[in-house]
Amino acid sequence: MKYSFFADYSEGAHPEILKCLVDHNDDQDLTYGNDKYCALASKRILKRFNIKDGEVHFISSGTLANVVGLSSMLKPFEGIIAPSTGHINVHEAGAIEAVGHKIIYLDTPDGKLTPDHIEKAMLTYEDEHTVIPRILYLTQSTETANLYTKAELKSVIDRAKFHGLYVFVDGARLPMAFASAKSDMTPEEFGALGIDMFYIGGTKNGGLFGEAIVITNPLLQPYFRNHMKQRGAILGKARAIGAQFARFFDEDDLFIKVAKHACDGAKKMYDGLVELGIEFENEALVNQIFPIFETVHLDELEKLYGFYRYEKIGNDKQKIRLVISWATPQSAIEEFLKDVKTILG
Amino acid sequence: MKYSFFADYSEGAHPEILKCLVDHNDDQDLTYGNDKYCALASKRILKRFNIKDGEVHFISSGTLANVVGLSSMLKPFEGIIAPSTGHINVHEAGAIEAVGHKIIYLDTPDGKLTPDHIEKAMLTYEDEHTVIPRILYLTQSTETANLYTKAELKSVIDRAKFHGLYVFVDGARLPMAFASAKSDMTPEEFGALGIDMFYIGGTKNGGLFGEAIVITNPLLQPYFRNHMKQRGAILGKARAIGAQFARFFDEDDLFIKVAKHACDGAKKMYDGLVELGIEFENEALVNQIFPIFETVHLDELEKLYGFYRYEKIGNDKQKIRLVISWATPQSAIEEFLKDVKTILG
Amino acid sequence: MKYSFFADYSEGAHPEILKCLVDHNDDQDLTYGNDKYCALASKRILKRFNIKDGEVHFISSGTLANVVGLSSMLKPFEGIIAPSTGHINVHEAGAIEAVGHKIIYLDTPDGKLTPDHIEKAMLTYEDEHTVIPRILYLTQSTETANLYTKAELKSVIDRAKFHGLYVFVDGARLPMAFASAKSDMTPEEFGALGIDMFYIGGTKNGGLFGEAIVITNPLLQPYFRNHMKQRGAILGKARAIGAQFARFFDEDDLFIKVAKHACDGAKKMYDGLVELGIEFENEALVNQIFPIFETVHLDELEKLYGFYRYEKIGNDKQKIRLVISWATPQSAIEEFLKDVKTILG
Amino acid sequence: MKYSFFADYSEGAHPEILKCLVDHNDDQDLTYGNDKYCALASKRILKRFNIKDGEVHFISSGTLANVVGLSSMLKPFEGIIAPSTGHINVHEAGAIEAVGHKIIYLDTPDGKLTPDHIEKAMLTYEDEHTVIPRILYLTQSTETANLYTKAELKSVIDRAKFHGLYVFVDGARLPMAFASAKSDMTPEEFGALGIDMFYIGGTKNGGLFGEAIVITNPLLQPYFRNHMKQRGAILGKARAIGAQFARFFDEDDLFIKVAKHACDGAKKMYDGLVELGIEFENEALVNQIFPIFETVHLDELEKLYGFYRYEKIGNDKQKIRLVISWATPQSAIEEFLKDVKTILG
Repeated sequence: MKYSFFADYSEGAHPEILKCLVDHNDDQDLTYGNDKYCALASKRILKRFNIKDGEVHFISSGTLANVVGLSSMLKPFEGIIAPSTGHINVHEAGAIEAVGHKIIYLDTPDGKLTPDHIEKAMLTYEDEHTVIPRILYLTQSTETANLYTKAELKSVIDRAKFHGLYVFVDGARLPMAFASAKSDMTPEEFGALGIDMFYIGGTKNGGLFGEAIVITNPLLQPYFRNHMKQRGAILGKARAIGAQFARFFDEDDLFIKVAKHACDGAKKMYDGLVELGIEFENEALVNQIFPIFETVHLDELEKLYGFYRYEKIGNDKQKIRLVISWATPQSAIEEFLKDVKTILG
Repeated sequence: MKYSFFADYSEGAHPEILKCLVDHNDDQDLTYGNDKYCALASKRILKRFNIKDGEVHFISSGTLANVVGLSSMLKPFEGIIAPSTGHINVHEAGAIEAVGHKIIYLDTPDGKLTPDHIEKAMLTYEDEHTVIPRILYLTQSTETANLYTKAELKSVIDRAKFHGLYVFVDGARLPMAFASAKSDMTPEEFGALGIDMFYIGGTKNGGLFGEAIVITNPLLQPYFRNHMKQRGAILGKARAIGAQFARFFDEDDLFIKVAKHACDGAKKMYDGLVELGIEFENEALVNQIFPIFETVHLDELEKLYGFYRYEKIGNDKQKIRLVISWATPQSAIEEFLKDVKTILG
Repeated sequence: MKYSFFADYSEGAHPEILKCLVDHNDDQDLTYGNDKYCALASKRILKRFNIKDGEVHFISSGTLANVVGLSSMLKPFEGIIAPSTGHINVHEAGAIEAVGHKIIYLDTPDGKLTPDHIEKAMLTYEDEHTVIPRILYLTQSTETANLYTKAELKSVIDRAKFHGLYVFVDGARLPMAFASAKSDMTPEEFGALGIDMFYIGGTKNGGLFGEAIVITNPLLQPYFRNHMKQRGAILGKARAIGAQFARFFDEDDLFIKVAKHACDGAKKMYDGLVELGIEFENEALVNQIFPIFETVHLDELEKLYGFYRYEKIGNDKQKIRLVISWATPQSAIEEFLKDVKTILG
Repeated sequence: MKYSFFADYSEGAHPEILKCLVDHNDDQDLTYGNDKYCALASKRILKRFNIKDGEVHFISSGTLANVVGLSSMLKPFEGIIAPSTGHINVHEAGAIEAVGHKIIYLDTPDGKLTPDHIEKAMLTYEDEHTVIPRILYLTQSTETANLYTKAELKSVIDRAKFHGLYVFVDGARLPMAFASAKSDMTPEEFGALGIDMFYIGGTKNGGLFGEAIVITNPLLQPYFRNHMKQRGAILGKARAIGAQFARFFDEDDLFIKVAKHACDGAKKMYDGLVELGIEFENEALVNQIFPIFETVHLDELEKLYGFYRYEKIGNDKQKIRLVISWATPQSAIEEFLKDVKTILG
């Protein structure tokens, strides 16, 4: 296989991240996240998002970040409003339900929730016989490679607040939302939207492992580490995640730079495929694109490249997913385009 | 208020049930459901449904019957396919999720699942990242007062079996499904459909309290009492539920007789209202009917009768729910019809 | 078998309780515990215990009362201090752990906790790596037929409060604690001890089924019905429990009268056996006694009477448990004593 | 502070481990543990322990390894027998109970369970009203720096098997059990004892993060990854753990070498302190030692070194914990001994 476009976490860590792990390896420091790296990373993250009175914690995986973060906000009989495409609803093996909470999921045309979705979900609440909706769960950028605009986010968050909901943003690919050429939002602006808790993905953006969860609402901060510990989410050497995020949020904005490489690569791939006459249903917003190929061409393409066959379109076509990562070299994209051209004949 | 048509559990117990509780009160017997009444009730129920190798247990409430029954069949990462209108999905405060399981719910036009719904739900399963659908949950008669025909039940159950699903029937109002004038199924025929577990409601059919859960699949019987105990579902004096069900399933088929009174009453009410020009979206199948009144008439009607305002229809009309119970006297129905006539003018 | 001394729930209901169920059977009323019987029972219970601002709820079984009551007071990482003999620790199939909470259990010589036990349990708490002890769980009268004196209760509760613990009393046999000849406490005095939540057993004191849970601490009252519903603990006809407790707490103090019959019977049995030379390790405090027989005599006795073989004492003796219930006639006790005399020779 | 003896995870990774992360960083490979590093590490681990038909999985933290491993073996009403000092009982914030299972904990004089403890625990089981003991949980080396001999392990495991229990070994510090000068067991011998599941700690033995869980019992292997995913225990880049363990289990037995450095250092420290007249209750078995100092000396010592004050002994003395890690240089031990000598005067 020449190259895999299967995922943005098929390699180890970005060289700068790896370097910082090496550089900081030998110091003795406190365990369980009480170290200077975690402290520095927290400070830098809060500054970059311009969040006062926030708290940051470091967790090894996205699913665990969702489980701990969401469950920490809920009473046993409270639930979460989410799009049906949300990661917690489809790709976490029922992790949220396993800790006791209902996901009130809603079908969406594009993976994004609107104020109307919230209204619909709120109708399910009657009294003690029904789950109380308490959290609005959003993903930015979405699992379907979509982006909320600032105005869209604002309107859905405002409606959530009107109904007394907390807002949680799954940011497994949040850096791409700032790095996208279509982004209309800075981290500072994102930090001012009234989100109660969100997490910033490391794994899919060049980190070796680990995600940073940011609690902007001070009422949700007490006992958070107890929740983490009980779910197995405090690492003995959490310092290793802290060090990565301290580097990501150093003055050069590495977390955005790295994501930009991926988003720009996806745009380049998109433009190249369009030029070759390949159809798309959506434009390239972040680092995943979904070209529609004639099925007959895919077998040959699959001999050379890794990718995910997403969905059949009619009898003869198939949508595939190409993920461009922080690590994808320009040459891999160019080679792919050349090979597609050859295959299409 | 002259009479409440709010629910079919607004009174105590049917006189025959009450009498049997009184008659059997003084005997000493074993505790926790190991008594002769529970044994007799089990035997009679299995005989009436013609189920060999079945087991019956007695549980105090329908929600608890659902929680214990469904969770006893599942590994932690397995889930339940249900209609979005299913009682477990909307009116049990997230009880199923509270014991760790996802409900994969599907919208239906009429509260009934079809083979196509199962196909759709099965598509959500991919690998260890997704919940494994393991149970098909149906309600007969449905929460929306609908009835599966025998052919419908058979086709949806067969499809479930094809996919390796267990089938669970919530029978909070199962007696009505046999008592309905539209029923095309006997208990014996129901028992032969391949359902793995179901429960027979007592509370809504003249019992004082308690439901009977029937496990037809012998593989699901071991440890069931451990599941029950852990959920607080074994009563010290389970004999009191056993005695009621022994009476319900005595030779006079009291469980159907009692339900028939309710279904027939609903039909009488339906016919009377139709005659007065009241609209319905559905015919009367069991013991709940949903007439559509002009909103202006409801305030006056509500001074005289209890009922549930179900749904607004446009600006001027409202669908209400009238429940006829085992206890509703003919006179209450006649009086209601007379008063409606007066109010309509 | 002439008579069973196996349990105090081997019969149906006390005649007065049965009568009230019959008397109140036909009224229409609100469902799910919103009826006039529950309201009246609540009022009478709060008055009898002289509790202002309290709330009462009615639950079908003791295990469910413990599960709902205790879990409603806890955050996920908080635990319960209990004696190792506590019902929640040994006879509820792990029901408390099943809803997520640790029981920090302590060995006691007599089933009763002291301030020193609390100190020992509090030592287990360090930081977010350890469970936070949050509830003191006591049983009065205890599972081992023991009684806390008022002074003992006060000292252990005061120590609990000093450590910021809630206090929960499992009162499956609370009525016996007031009915015992050794009782030094009235319900009013019990109500003034600073207990946050307790339940009053019906099942073991002549009720047909159902327990009354009393929440004295107003901070613990909100959302209690949501917890109940999610655990399947709201009965459609909760009115049937309400009616029983309204009768128990009517002006004639039936709940104590009924318990007194049992306690007095146990004392009579105890005195009779002592007279026959039978040994005891403890005096008769409530309605269970534990005579020590020579094992050779038990086989013969077991042909005539039901009882539980509790524990072997050395090679030749065995402690048995005799439970005298609200229903035990004097004649059964007298007959038993006569038969023991004959067997002993 | 000159040096911290607080923990064996106060630094980053062992240089060889760090090097392998760097060396293998750039390859593209499959995600979620389906990569070649995890495959290689599995193969090497199974070979080193001489386990046929075993399976290995890689999990980010010890608490998560315990939660996933133990819960995967249990039905909801089954529990775990453990020493009261067990990590799952005291330092995981109730993580096991949070996923629904009771820990039946037993006091031990030395952190080690014996066949008698198992007998005592088995007595708690009666019927469906009690938790069913199903797993024996042991730690090797123990939380209290103790070691089971091979004969001790064998006898306790054999008794567990006699009672139908599974055996799980928490091996957060398992490498030390082979590296100790007092070890009487090889990995191969350990692998032949009949243990059903165990995990090998990386974090405390020079890994950057991650533990390897070994399932020797083939009946416990199906669906394990589903359990992992549901608890957030599958990392996108699990390859990073795989690479570390592939290195640990390379031909030079790095996992033992690294542990030996720590154990030898602890012995050197122990011998040096004994020479200075410092008392110990136990000899140095692994890499933690517990010297008893006069309290007056500790304040001064604490200005220079980090350590944990474990327990007061009488009024004037205090037991402290010194942990020697894979990273501790000889010079730090020598310096500490010199400073103690000075302080003692």
